[in-house]
Amino acid sequence: MINIAILGYGNLGRGVECAIKNTNDMKLSYVFTRRPPETVKILTESATVCHIDELVSKKDEIDVLIICGGSATDLPVQTPEYVKYFNVIDSFDTHAKIPEHFENVDKNAQISGKIGIISVGWDPGMFSLNRLYANAVLPNGQDYTFWGKGVSQGHSDAIRRIDGVIDARQYTVPVDEAVESVRKGENPTLTTRQKHTRLCYVVAEDNADKALIEKQIKEMPNYFADYDTTVHFITMEEMKREHSSLPHGGCVIRSGKTGWELENNHVIEYSLKLDSNPEFTASVLVAYARAAYRLNQKGEYGCKTVFDIPPALLSPKSSAEIVKELL
Amino acid sequence: MINIAILGYGNLGRGVECAIKNTNDMKLSYVFTRRPPETVKILTESATVCHIDELVSKKDEIDVLIICGGSATDLPVQTPEYVKYFNVIDSFDTHAKIPEHFENVDKNAQISGKIGIISVGWDPGMFSLNRLYANAVLPNGQDYTFWGKGVSQGHSDAIRRIDGVIDARQYTVPVDEAVESVRKGENPTLTTRQKHTRLCYVVAEDNADKALIEKQIKEMPNYFADYDTTVHFITMEEMKREHSSLPHGGCVIRSGKTGWELENNHVIEYSLKLDSNPEFTASVLVAYARAAYRLNQKGEYGCKTVFDIPPALLSPKSSAEIVKELL
Repeated sequence: MINIAILGYGNLGRGVECAIKNTNDMKLSYVFTRRPPETVKILTESATVCHIDELVSKKDEIDVLIICGGSATDLPVQTPEYVKYFNVIDSFDTHAKIPEHFENVDKNAQISGKIGIISVGWDPGMFSLNRLYANAVLPNGQDYTFWGKGVSQGHSDAIRRIDGVIDARQYTVPVDEAVESVRKGENPTLTTRQKHTRLCYVVAEDNADKALIEKQIKEMPNYFADYDTTVHFITMEEMKREHSSLPHGGCVIRSGKTGWELENNHVIEYSLKLDSNPEFTASVLVAYARAAYRLNQKGEYGCKTVFDIPPALLSPKSSAEIVKELL
Repeated sequence: MINIAILGYGNLGRGVECAIKNTNDMKLSYVFTRRPPETVKILTESATVCHIDELVSKKDEIDVLIICGGSATDLPVQTPEYVKYFNVIDSFDTHAKIPEHFENVDKNAQISGKIGIISVGWDPGMFSLNRLYANAVLPNGQDYTFWGKGVSQGHSDAIRRIDGVIDARQYTVPVDEAVESVRKGENPTLTTRQKHTRLCYVVAEDNADKALIEKQIKEMPNYFADYDTTVHFITMEEMKREHSSLPHGGCVIRSGKTGWELENNHVIEYSLKLDSNPEFTASVLVAYARAAYRLNQKGEYGCKTVFDIPPALLSPKSSAEIVKELL
């Protein structure tokens, strides 16, 4: 059994716990938290909740540490720090800062002899893999990534920071016509506005100026100004009843040409429809934890991404089994 | 530049030639054929056509040999034989015999120190990879593979062997209702008949008994008896005008559950829409030829499948570039 520890017990950490339950070769040993451990109730009876201060002292009992913190402030510190002691996995998703994060993790992993696999999940993660495969197979082509329909936590948070807003949920919605055009191989040039719309559900304070809130949302730079945005005001009861889950999904499409005169077109599409964004992301993290353990057992170390991992290492099955059953 | 040779210049070999033209890091050096070389006209001016008898004598000039023969009789002999001298790629697609083929190639590759990557293409190949990734991420789930709409060469050939048939083209067509049910996460149990239909276009001799031909097609065991099959008789002109290309495609879908009580469902789909089946297959072969070369340069050898190859090796770009651009 591969001994796994989780650092950070929010939606993602709970998703990792569930994903480990659905494996036969992994065991959750510890959950580490910054909160007082006695206040954190987990689902796995055989696992122990400890304060983060105890993490390093447990290093001989843990094969892989899955770090479930946020990309803004947690992971840039935690992943480089804990790869000094553990094989680690994270879901760092600030695309622009991935090269810097890679360097920071790699520097310490080279010294410790551990593996750190960063930016694991679905985007970055499974979507990235599909962009890579499709680009390698069809070098003459164009990539499209559509997200949604799904809840964007960052956009929901941005709305919540507006005065008079009690709660908010923002759905990113791909524009059907754009997706269909790409699927047909028409290779359209699409603006930001043509690719996605933004749909917002907002619970406002009783005396709030709803017209002003709507204006502030729709004009918010970076988050909403470049999109067609729809705002619906709802009650807290409606919010709880209809918007408490975290679905997401999307698709990566590459349309490309082959032939001596590039006369033939091909469309490769990878798509996800997810009931629970954090549970799916967690399931990817757990599969890569298996790979990290196996690679380190073979003597490999350093920072890795999904691009570096032979697919076979993700499966609990033997090479002979996967060749027979899946090839 | 990576020096590539092609063995066998049919549809697939020509596709490989075109795919190499669309790379910046590979060069077609030789095409080997069983035909008299002077009768084989190729498109690449800088490459040389040679008889297969000369193949081994050119071994120092070739980095990877892409073997473009058929799975029935060519590849079981050629791939184990030529991995004695070359890094080789093949598209062996007789699913049931892959483990045996793997063993035969591996035995000789272990002695020669070369790499042989077998069963490369889209199924087996890209579809297999997607089955593996989806199974690793969603261990509780069900796999579905649909093929088409596309031309099945094997089924077309089977019709051509019937008395009175001059030419035939068979399209495998997935049943829309079945695909939609799977996409919705309904996890249906589907019979062979419920998954695909078969659509046949036949050119018959003038005096042929068309009713008898249609009966023979529809009752043919293994090929047609288990399917709803439609037969259209057309003229040779119609055949040439409307059925001369080799489109194909299909999709791999896995629907699976996560959560402590498996309460959330997820659907992962990988789909292909291909104008030219042989050119797309060839494009996958060429990407894996790049990986074979790089792996062998690093000192690796033996028989491999797509499951063993780190995705990064397929891309002509550096690791830093793919992390920056595609992750």
